[in-house]
Amino acid sequence: MSEIEARASTPRLHDRLEAITDLLRRREGLLAFAGAAPETDDAALNATDAELQVRLDELHPADLADVLESLPLHDRLAVWQRVRSDRDGDILLEVSDSVRESLIADMDDREILAAVEPLDADELADLVDDLPTEVLPELMASLDAQERERVQAAMSYEDDQVGALMDFDMVTIREDISLEVVLRYLRRFDELPAQTDKLFVVNADNVLTGVLPLHWLLVNSPEKMVREIMAPDVNTFHPEDDAYDVAQAFERYDLVTAPVVDAHQRLIGRIAVDAMLDFIREESETEALSRGGLREEEDIFASVWKSVRNRWAWLAINLVTAFIASRVIGLFEHSIEKLVALATLMPIVAGIGGNSGNQTITMIVRAMALEQIGVAQVKRLWRKELGVALVNGIVWGGAIGTVAWLLYGSASLGLVMTAAMTLNLLLAAFMGVAIPMLMTKMGRDPALGSSVLITAMTDSGGFFIFLGLATVFLL
Amino acid sequence: MSEIEARASTPRLHDRLEAITDLLRRREGLLAFAGAAPETDDAALNATDAELQVRLDELHPADLADVLESLPLHDRLAVWQRVRSDRDGDILLEVSDSVRESLIADMDDREILAAVEPLDADELADLVDDLPTEVLPELMASLDAQERERVQAAMSYEDDQVGALMDFDMVTIREDISLEVVLRYLRRFDELPAQTDKLFVVNADNVLTGVLPLHWLLVNSPEKMVREIMAPDVNTFHPEDDAYDVAQAFERYDLVTAPVVDAHQRLIGRIAVDAMLDFIREESETEALSRGGLREEEDIFASVWKSVRNRWAWLAINLVTAFIASRVIGLFEHSIEKLVALATLMPIVAGIGGNSGNQTITMIVRAMALEQIGVAQVKRLWRKELGVALVNGIVWGGAIGTVAWLLYGSASLGLVMTAAMTLNLLLAAFMGVAIPMLMTKMGRDPALGSSVLITAMTDSGGFFIFLGLATVFLL
Repeated sequence: MSEIEARASTPRLHDRLEAITDLLRRREGLLAFAGAAPETDDAALNATDAELQVRLDELHPADLADVLESLPLHDRLAVWQRVRSDRDGDILLEVSDSVRESLIADMDDREILAAVEPLDADELADLVDDLPTEVLPELMASLDAQERERVQAAMSYEDDQVGALMDFDMVTIREDISLEVVLRYLRRFDELPAQTDKLFVVNADNVLTGVLPLHWLLVNSPEKMVREIMAPDVNTFHPEDDAYDVAQAFERYDLVTAPVVDAHQRLIGRIAVDAMLDFIREESETEALSRGGLREEEDIFASVWKSVRNRWAWLAINLVTAFIASRVIGLFEHSIEKLVALATLMPIVAGIGGNSGNQTITMIVRAMALEQIGVAQVKRLWRKELGVALVNGIVWGGAIGTVAWLLYGSASLGLVMTAAMTLNLLLAAFMGVAIPMLMTKMGRDPALGSSVLITAMTDSGGFFIFLGLATVFLL
Repeated sequence: MSEIEARASTPRLHDRLEAITDLLRRREGLLAFAGAAPETDDAALNATDAELQVRLDELHPADLADVLESLPLHDRLAVWQRVRSDRDGDILLEVSDSVRESLIADMDDREILAAVEPLDADELADLVDDLPTEVLPELMASLDAQERERVQAAMSYEDDQVGALMDFDMVTIREDISLEVVLRYLRRFDELPAQTDKLFVVNADNVLTGVLPLHWLLVNSPEKMVREIMAPDVNTFHPEDDAYDVAQAFERYDLVTAPVVDAHQRLIGRIAVDAMLDFIREESETEALSRGGLREEEDIFASVWKSVRNRWAWLAINLVTAFIASRVIGLFEHSIEKLVALATLMPIVAGIGGNSGNQTITMIVRAMALEQIGVAQVKRLWRKELGVALVNGIVWGGAIGTVAWLLYGSASLGLVMTAAMTLNLLLAAFMGVAIPMLMTKMGRDPALGSSVLITAMTDSGGFFIFLGLATVFLL
């Protein structure tokens, strides 16, 4: 029991990381002061090395990947050289793209080939793009015909298609045998593929005729035939299916694995919940990054130049939109000269439009992702959003308008402020519905870029409305 | 085979939704024109009702939940009244909070009790908060002692703790029996709990001594004893554990289920990958919503008043920060009066600071969530981010400064612009690192509110720096 308790309280990654960093520092210290007392130093160095090795060996590949990602390049390579070579492949699969690049750059061709040799076809396909081209001929030659075909097939799909996420770890059976025979057949395996929750029933042409959940195999009498108890699987996917839809099906129907078939219903692979979990996590990360204007995940120890490259596109787009907004203001310099309060108040009008428009877009993009609304509902949504904008405009616009009146002693300035805020909120509501709808109609992902667009419109629009109204009514 | 093919091409939710909406419209049409030819109308109405019923009955509860969420209130209740009452409970579990509220409001106490009666303790616990208080005494009285205890235990945990997400569908065995006996024991079940991939081995005190994966049960000889082949499970969780950490463990170690134990290692529940998938999806949605300033998921057919209430807090905060920024500009009205170009150019300085600061925060919040960095690395991060800011300031600040010079024919105005942009980018970089670090130190979630804070600082800061420099050097 005490053993279990010790294992149960797995230290958190952060503590393990600290322990490893401490050992690396201690090692460096010993090396730096080497020479004074060679024997004690050697013993201490060996002890440190041994402890470091133990710490690294007991880490799961996914945890080791995290440790490598969290270390600056120098320490990272020091740890990488100590990882047992048979685990290299698994770890390369787990680390982020930028860290993988730095690790592969540290390996020679022989090490790379040795690292990827134990991997499955679907795992190889994930790595191939990051390997140096000179190792590919030898790598491909080392595979048998089926494996080579699978690697090439998996590579031919986009990252967000089922074909790129499926694996080939299927256990297949025939329908004209008894469960007893299935049980005997399974006992010939040393182990079943990870996450196997069902067996795939195929005919002589490898056409999927049903699935046999392991549960049913266990609760039914061994005399029964597979044919009697198997189920046609309604959750069958094709390699070209969108992984996002498949992830929704996994979540919705609580799937663990599902068969992947070709156009002729022939079984070609399997998709498992672990791939779906990874996909969902990656999707939400990519979304968070792109919303922040980062083109790809940025290794936090990346150089300044690499970071600048990763971020410049977003900054450039935003500078252009800010410049356009600035030119709109430029049109009204004459008015601002006469009434400088306009310059002070105008950012409020632009700001509230941007915030409100982003709220509308957030809600609509989410409802669209969940397929709750289509382009057909646009009128109903406009009615609601314009209603919300009107209420907000009267309430917040009225409040700020009153403050402006009190600050500058001009009731008409306050009225213009209220009117401008309301109009900009209405513009934001109209555009907040229209932009994601239009992007969807044009076949683009409304989650990307909608926010930049609406902010650009409410900034320029807000300045134009406020300064325009002021020019007409106040000057 | 043709049957499987038909099932495999499950129509997408959107098509099913449209079919149901069409039937509802047809029905309304028939009712509106009733009277002219009563007999034909009745037949048509019955046919429509029957078709609608078939369509609804064949939908999975999760899909029906989606349909209900996608319909305006009137249609939603029309569908809800046609759902078979034994499915009510499952569907209430699947719908979003706001839709659940509207459905429960349409049910009387009797219907509510009938709907929740078939649910498990963990499912009940999820619903109890949304039920009218007057049904609770009767509901609790209908449960046996163990169920009542489980409901109360599950309700005592926060939504993001394991205790609130675990279920009680464990299959437990003893270690001193043979696999043959286990197989016979399992055959006495009609079915195993969903997603069961391992059996939990407990002693007479219900202390977890190990787990027996179904795979091992299948590949090992039936004569072996459970004790010989079971494994102590390293992935054991406690009900008070943070669900976010557990989700990471599921993703990392490709788990399907994991045992939940109390402080004395006694088995009290099970956590399954479907709950984790739901949790991850909900987390990323909540994050997206809160980033957009929506306090909770908003039913897209919610009334204008409800939407206003949901969104007002974020707008209020942003108005306050915009107002502060506006007062900063107010300090320099005298300068703007003298040089109106300042009003035109100042939004660019503020804008680029906000965008750049948000990039820094996005990267750091993400790295912190993955535990790649701690407060210890703050100096290294500052060095890097300040470097990036300096490069961007010189490049983009230089470009915009040149444009300002050309537009207004004043080299010194261009220089001030460049200097102000660089300084504001440096401020954004400094704060972009400091804010999430400080929030973490204070024990708060850096993902929430960081963006509002940095934008507030770079707006006010940008106006102050630019107008201040201009006042000192240009006037």
